[in-house]
Amino acid sequence: MDAAKVDEALIAEYLDRLYEIGRLDGGGVWRPTYSPAWQEARTVVRGWLSAAGLSVREDAVGNLFGRLAGTEAGPVVLVGSHIDTVYAGGKFDGALGVVGAIVALRALQERQPRPRRPVEVFVSCEEEDSRFICNFWGSRAMLGEIDPAEASNYRDADGIVMSDAMAEYGLEPRRIGEARRNDLGAFLELHIEQGPVLEQAGIVLGIVEAISGLNRTSVQVVGQADHAGTTPIAMRRDAGLAAAEMLLAVRSVADELGEPARATVGTLTMYPNQPNIVPSRVEFIVDSRHPDRAAQVALLEAISGRCQEVAARHGVSVSIKTLIDQPPTVMDPRLVASLEGCAQRRGLSTRRMVSGAGHDAQVVGRKIPTVMLFVPSQGGRSHSPAEHTSFEQIVPGVQVLADALTELSGAGS
Amino acid sequence: MDAAKVDEALIAEYLDRLYEIGRLDGGGVWRPTYSPAWQEARTVVRGWLSAAGLSVREDAVGNLFGRLAGTEAGPVVLVGSHIDTVYAGGKFDGALGVVGAIVALRALQERQPRPRRPVEVFVSCEEEDSRFICNFWGSRAMLGEIDPAEASNYRDADGIVMSDAMAEYGLEPRRIGEARRNDLGAFLELHIEQGPVLEQAGIVLGIVEAISGLNRTSVQVVGQADHAGTTPIAMRRDAGLAAAEMLLAVRSVADELGEPARATVGTLTMYPNQPNIVPSRVEFIVDSRHPDRAAQVALLEAISGRCQEVAARHGVSVSIKTLIDQPPTVMDPRLVASLEGCAQRRGLSTRRMVSGAGHDAQVVGRKIPTVMLFVPSQGGRSHSPAEHTSFEQIVPGVQVLADALTELSGAGS
Repeated sequence: MDAAKVDEALIAEYLDRLYEIGRLDGGGVWRPTYSPAWQEARTVVRGWLSAAGLSVREDAVGNLFGRLAGTEAGPVVLVGSHIDTVYAGGKFDGALGVVGAIVALRALQERQPRPRRPVEVFVSCEEEDSRFICNFWGSRAMLGEIDPAEASNYRDADGIVMSDAMAEYGLEPRRIGEARRNDLGAFLELHIEQGPVLEQAGIVLGIVEAISGLNRTSVQVVGQADHAGTTPIAMRRDAGLAAAEMLLAVRSVADELGEPARATVGTLTMYPNQPNIVPSRVEFIVDSRHPDRAAQVALLEAISGRCQEVAARHGVSVSIKTLIDQPPTVMDPRLVASLEGCAQRRGLSTRRMVSGAGHDAQVVGRKIPTVMLFVPSQGGRSHSPAEHTSFEQIVPGVQVLADALTELSGAGS
Repeated sequence: MDAAKVDEALIAEYLDRLYEIGRLDGGGVWRPTYSPAWQEARTVVRGWLSAAGLSVREDAVGNLFGRLAGTEAGPVVLVGSHIDTVYAGGKFDGALGVVGAIVALRALQERQPRPRRPVEVFVSCEEEDSRFICNFWGSRAMLGEIDPAEASNYRDADGIVMSDAMAEYGLEPRRIGEARRNDLGAFLELHIEQGPVLEQAGIVLGIVEAISGLNRTSVQVVGQADHAGTTPIAMRRDAGLAAAEMLLAVRSVADELGEPARATVGTLTMYPNQPNIVPSRVEFIVDSRHPDRAAQVALLEAISGRCQEVAARHGVSVSIKTLIDQPPTVMDPRLVASLEGCAQRRGLSTRRMVSGAGHDAQVVGRKIPTVMLFVPSQGGRSHSPAEHTSFEQIVPGVQVLADALTELSGAGS
């Protein structure tokens, strides 16, 4: 099979155009779900889908689909990503997967205008908690995992209820069930790595084998407030010192388990937070991740055990609560192999890797064979205007995506 | 010399009365300087000074003095404390020293209506930073350490300039220099310990040998923000982990130096403080104290050195700034011995100790022979409505204060 040839200029043009939508004065973009910027992006993308000769359809939550019919009715090969962004987001997160999918599908059509299996571009309406804390809303709706009543549960920072925000764009929450698809056969998502691994190793493409399971654990340490001048150090029950030791213990646990375990304390608050008062209470959240469920659970248990150990030693009490428990998602081995084969035929270096970040693919991949393809992120930067992947780093990703789509959709009649 | 006999009922009555002034609905009192509650307390105390047969005088900043004349003109034996309180302060901090001084002076007069040296009750107008951050304003004015222009430098939380607040009570900032006293021979301050040492040791009275020098040092740690899921732990420059290790180092330094060194991190802020982002920056303040100047400086240098060591190991940068550097104040050995003698004659147990907290006595003691007398604080609580010292614990303090005043003022003609 000849390799598909992607329109490189179009990749650049489309990415530039999307990065104009939702621009912030301070740099970066914001395209929160069900907002004017989001709608503008959808309108532009709809135009691109039509221009590619695809038949365009919107579902009940606002996901867009652009379909290239196959000689057979199904199952569908799905390819895409999301168009919503975090606040002050960058040019590539989500956008690359949408643009890459459209350009790849154009290349596919040049090789085989009518493939055997239908191929659809999936433009997910929500992935980032960009406005409502309703993570993976678009892909969850597509998999039939959302109850219509759920749209009334979420409010944005201004108190607007999600169901009202949907209605502004003609979307009816009572019809959410209609978004469910039962005809999907595979899902491919091209994305920036959002980490430094590929760049530092000088590898062109990352092929994701698993998306890490994620836990968020809140830890509250309670000691006793005392005067910093009058209380001998040995008589204190200092919640700050106990918490400090717990942070180091969290790090040790991850070190002991080794790569690709992650454990991070990114948020910590001290009370009463006065320079002359021994801290009575400290609250922090541990973000821990592992692509293997057993290791994910072991990581969590070790963190909890070590925090309790530290607390006992400091004479403080500790209360540990699970806020989030998401299991890992394993990517489809056949799709992993297919991407590897396509890259190999183009002579591109690849590395199998784990995604430590969450993606639509982790939701879809629980039910449908799924794979993700990573291109390098410069300096590992993401969720920031500093997010960057050079044009030269992007093109191989779109090419391999096009090749894989061509292979998966199969030659038509 | 017969021991002076204090009016125990009056101590209770006066303390109860003061604790009615500035009451907060949530518990405790607030008597910020140059406020209605402060003025009400001064009016009540003025009445008590007059009722004790003392001649009452107010100075240019609002300190009150109640004078018992001596057969000689000077030098004056001064005794007292402050009437302003922290927000939600307790019943005893400052108040006990004022009430105790008045009751002790009444007892003294019963023994010797006309002592050789004049004795004055000092009711300091400001000690707590209770409204303006102008610590020890009353005693500094009395020592001639305030430039009249300084009153324009401070604003309260509502933006009111201190000089305007003074004017509301008829006080003229341009006359601040007139508050200066050159006739003082000794200062005695009775106070609650504000720490747990006396209670835990079962000792009746603490006799302060020195007031610790105080440093406040701001430490800013700068690392790099990274995605908590995608960045391998070994590739991070985690400002939070570095700061955690610094907190433990601060504690170790104090432990190594031993009692009565104090080093506390009571306030810490993490940035951007998001659960899924490796902290890029952490700021905290170290409160360190020691009664020996050389040890105070050594403590500070060790803390700074260890923080730099930790920063280097974590690949983060650290910037360390001195916010406050107050030297220790050594109490007068003759006055210390005098208090000890008085306590001994009453069969009361005493312990020489260091004050880790700041007091008017630390300002006055730099120029005038000064001593402080501590009574136990239950549970070490202070600066809180939970502040408590039983009546049985208070009376010995006032008795010994009366005895010492009697001894120091000397028999008159």
